[in-house]
This record gives sequence, C-alpha cells and structure tokens, in this order.
Amino acid sequence: MRIAVDAMGGDHAPALVVTGAVQAARDLGMQVILVGRQEAIQAELAKHDTSGLQVAVHHASQVIEMDEHPAAAVKAKKDSSMTVGLDLVKRGEADAFFTAGNSGGALAAALFRLGRIRGILRPSISTIFPSLTPSGFCFLLDIGANADCKPDYLLQFAMMGSIYAERVLGVTTPRVAIVSNGEEEGKGNQLVQETVPLLRASKLNFVGNAEGKDIPWGLADVVVTDGFTGNVIVKLAEGVSRLILDVLKQELMSRPVTKVGALLSKPAFNSVKRRLDYREYGGAPLLGVDGVVIIGHGRSDAMAIRNGVRLAAQTVENGVLDAIKHGLAGYQALAETPPE
Amino acid sequence: MRIAVDAMGGDHAPALVVTGAVQAARDLGMQVILVGRQEAIQAELAKHDTSGLQVAVHHASQVIEMDEHPAAAVKAKKDSSMTVGLDLVKRGEADAFFTAGNSGGALAAALFRLGRIRGILRPSISTIFPSLTPSGFCFLLDIGANADCKPDYLLQFAMMGSIYAERVLGVTTPRVAIVSNGEEEGKGNQLVQETVPLLRASKLNFVGNAEGKDIPWGLADVVVTDGFTGNVIVKLAEGVSRLILDVLKQELMSRPVTKVGALLSKPAFNSVKRRLDYREYGGAPLLGVDGVVIIGHGRSDAMAIRNGVRLAAQTVENGVLDAIKHGLAGYQALAETPPE
Repeated sequence: MRIAVDAMGGDHAPALVVTGAVQAARDLGMQVILVGRQEAIQAELAKHDTSGLQVAVHHASQVIEMDEHPAAAVKAKKDSSMTVGLDLVKRGEADAFFTAGNSGGALAAALFRLGRIRGILRPSISTIFPSLTPSGFCFLLDIGANADCKPDYLLQFAMMGSIYAERVLGVTTPRVAIVSNGEEEGKGNQLVQETVPLLRASKLNFVGNAEGKDIPWGLADVVVTDGFTGNVIVKLAEGVSRLILDVLKQELMSRPVTKVGALLSKPAFNSVKRRLDYREYGGAPLLGVDGVVIIGHGRSDAMAIRNGVRLAAQTVENGVLDAIKHGLAGYQALAETPPE
Repeated sequence: MRIAVDAMGGDHAPALVVTGAVQAARDLGMQVILVGRQEAIQAELAKHDTSGLQVAVHHASQVIEMDEHPAAAVKAKKDSSMTVGLDLVKRGEADAFFTAGNSGGALAAALFRLGRIRGILRPSISTIFPSLTPSGFCFLLDIGANADCKPDYLLQFAMMGSIYAERVLGVTTPRVAIVSNGEEEGKGNQLVQETVPLLRASKLNFVGNAEGKDIPWGLADVVVTDGFTGNVIVKLAEGVSRLILDVLKQELMSRPVTKVGALLSKPAFNSVKRRLDYREYGGAPLLGVDGVVIIGHGRSDAMAIRNGVRLAAQTVENGVLDAIKHGLAGYQALAETPPE
C-alpha cells in the first residue's frame, strides 16, 4: 500500500503533515510518499526517527495555496504538489492520494489529472458524519463539489455513497435518504422532487426524505444532497457543536460548584468531543474520479493526517474504485443514463 | 392589543394552547381571542381562573390537521380556526394571529385571507436563531415558505428581516449575510451568486457570505437563505443540539464520578438548554403577508404559546407591518422591482 501525501497542503503544512504521515507509516506499516518541496520536507523529516519506515519524498516545486482560485491555480502550476501527487496515482506509482490543502484545488486537479470514472457525471466530496446509526456514522454527500446539481448527479452520489458505506463502513444494504425540508413524500425543492422518483426506481435501499434533524439521529446510513446544502450541513453542525460545548464550558466555569462538577464530568465531555471530532476519520473521500483521493480538513493536525492516510488505505483495500466502476451497471436507473 | 389565537393548532391543542393563552392574558395584560371549537375551548377554559382577564372565544367549526395538505385543506375548510382567526385580523377585530398548527396551512390561509403586502413577491417564514451576536440571536429567513427562490425574493427577505431585527430585536443597522458554501465572494450556488450583487447594491448593511459555522457564531444579525436550506438549518441545529446534550447526559450517567459531576453541573446545563430553547421566543413571524401572523412550533407547550402570543404583540407594537410597507420604497434596489 503506497499512499502519496500532499506535504504542502493544509494550515499546518508541512510540519504536521510530515508528522502525521510518519505516524501512519509507523503505526499502520504503510508506505508513504511525501510530495512537495524536497528541502522543506527533508527538514521536517529530520525531526523524526524514520529508521525502518517506508517514507519516501517526491519533489514538486509549487504549492496551491488555500486562498487561490482552484481551477486557475491548478492550470497555472503544473508542478504543484497536488498535480504531481495525483500523477503518481495516475501512473500507478501510488495507490491513493491524500491532501489537506485547498479542497477546490484538489477537486480541480483530480478532474484534470485522473478524470471521471466512465459514466459518472460529476464527482462528489463525501464525509463521514456523526449519527446514531448502528455504525455511529452516516455517509453524507455531496458536501461541496457541486453547488448546483441535477437529479442524475444525486442518484449517482447515492449509488457511490452506498458502495462506500458497504465497503468501508461495513454497512450491509445501507439505507439511503435524501435531505429535504419535510419527511413527507412530495416535500422538497424542485431538485429533490425530481430526484426522489429516480431513487425509488433504483436498486438502492431508499428510505425517503431526511429532515435536518434526522441526519444526526440515525435515520439513514447514506444521506444524499447537493453540494451547497451538504456544505452548509457539515459546517453548521461543526459551528453548533462548538458553540454548545463552548457555552457549556463558560457556564460551568462561572460558578464554583459547577466548576467542580465540570472537573468530575470531564471524561464524559471528552467522550462526546471524540464522537464529534473530524480528526477521528481524517478525511473526505472524493468519489467519482478515476483514482482514490481523500481530502483532509484544512485545519488537520498530525492525528487527522494519520487517520486520513489510513482512510485512503482502507478505501484502496476495500476496492471502492472498482466497485463504483462495476456498480454503475448494477443500478437499474443508472443503466439508462448515458455518459455526459 | 388583541391577539387571535388558533386554539386548535399544535400537538397539544386545545389544552396547552388555552393554558398558554390564559397565561399571556394574565402575565402580559393583553386581550386574547381563542378561535376554534367553542365547546372544546370552554371546557379547557373552565380549568382556569380567568376572572378579570380579557379572554374571549370565537367559534370556528373546522380544524386543519397537522398532516393535511395545506392548500387543499385551506380551500376545503372555509370555517377552520385558521381561516376564521385570520379573518378577525383582516376585519380589524384582532391585531395579530398566532397558530401552532400546520405551518404550510398557516401560510396558505394567510396568503388566501390576508394576501401579500403590495410589492412583496413572496412571504417568508423567519425565525429567531441562537447566535453569539450582541443580542444573543440572529434572525434567519426563509425557513420553509419557499423551497425554491429567486434572487429578488432573497433581497426582499433580507429587507424584511432587517426591519424585523431593527424593530423587534432592537438591533440598529443590522448586519445582513447570505448563507453560502464559502465565505469568499464568488462562492455559492447560482441563486447566491445572482443575489449577492442585489444585496450589495441595496441600502442594507450587507456583510457578505455566511458559512454554516458562522450562523451560530454571530457573524450577522440577519441571515438570509432559500426556504429549503433555511429549513434544513433550523432542523439540523435542533437535531445536533439534542444529540449532543443527550449523548452528554448518557455519558455522564454511565460512571458514578461523572454522575456527581452532572448533578453539580446542572445549573450550567439548564442555562445552555434555555439559550437553545425555541419556547423562549415562541414563534416564527410570517413576513410579507398583509397582517401580523406568528407561527408556533407544532410541539409548543403552554410556555411556548404564551411567548408566541407575546411575540405577536411585540410585532404589532413595533409597527413591523407598516415599516415593511414603507420600507419597500426605501431600499434602492427594490424600488425597481415591479410587483409580480
């Protein structure tokens, strides 16, 4: 298993990316190829004991910055760590690519270097979202690759999400729901109303509409939506969680009695924080491109990077890419969808 | 101040609606007109001491149930408590209408009986959302009246929301943001990208895009979005809050030490719960119709009903309706928007 890691991507690159990648190599026994400015990476590597570990460096002279316009930056910087890392996957020199850099850039570079899987209309960025399902998670997509979607896209997202939930999260016949503004059939915006019949006609285990409140409450294993709504969902959940825990902390610290209470309650707080922590799974799979690509949170620390690399390896091991390629044919309604 | 209250609307009608309305009459010294099946209302009123209170009953023989198709039910049931209550407002026999019933029904009935304010393209359901603004809230709209929106609608929602935030929440020159999938200008789906220039050109205090995480963190006093996304936001926030507090409770109760901690921490938990509690403000103003209408949560208990009636009174007192009517002319970009 060889994972190419964008050493220059993320708010804490290259330092914590290198740390996390070294941890992945050590803890999980995998081969990691750090892609980016050789000198900077070597300087970071020198801080770690890498003897016996399979950590390689692959030079790339340019960096796509977090605030750059994705498509323009990818076009202008032919020797960026993203483009070079994805080329390793394309040439079969790496099995997957992980980046915590500019997510729009990762999407553009992946489309440009790897292309879409034949028959897939649009790639989708997906995330593992905390939910009271038996697995403790649901798989939510799209969370930002496509702000405006068509019904066919959502159908394909549901299909790719089902395969991912089955293969990587180990959920058999995952329950699929579509985000809507009401549980009742017939509710929804135009996009939802046009997508529901396609989902019903497919071979997916479609369980209907999910309201916002249903997503964390375990109604479905795969939750499908357009990239605009999905992005708002992920970021709102993050904002609300942080707000509640912060306000609670403030309140607890405001009185001596509750301060003692807080101290005694700490293990419970930590357990809840862990359940909500994106660093536990470390990344968002970019599905639909012809290669395994995992996009990490820009704020990723070493632990998030390590777990993102692990997720990339799990995605490869479980044959998600081939399953999507072959799965396309298996989903009835998709069979009639011609490639764009 | 005379508030017509739909005695038949909500999961706990008529019992808790009557209780809440009586509390409003007692605590706030206002006149309440309970609209619905006279016998049922009288039976509930008999359980309360209403001597000296201004509580009237206005008979309506029909009820729009929670699960009925809104428009069809409103058309079929000419003597529903909603239609009759709204007619009291139309005829000037009440200053406002409050209902915790079928919100789609309330919207349809209000459009049917009161109509839109001249020049307003679409009414909007808005909500007071907990946020770290100086007021402790932001005003979020639309949360469900219009699943699919046009840029002009959002501009008007922003204008109506600003007026409401100014008049009722007491925020001077409220900061207005639009929900998007990225803070940077240029981010957004087609609707957002087309709306932003209108907001910039208006006289509103437009501060740019709000990501999901920014909404609870106080970026803006007025947050505007389409009714699909707004509905998902409100319900997701509810779901995530409940999940965190429930999981935290479970975790706290799982060990003797944290159990003690939980007991000592209780005041802090209660304070946070109160900040998140929809019952504190009691309802969602329906803006853009030609009359004051407040829609309560279907699960409203007596306290929520009482506070919803109070919100209706505050909306009347602060002259929101006239301000919207006159405000339309004041917002430059709107001046060119012809009524539909």
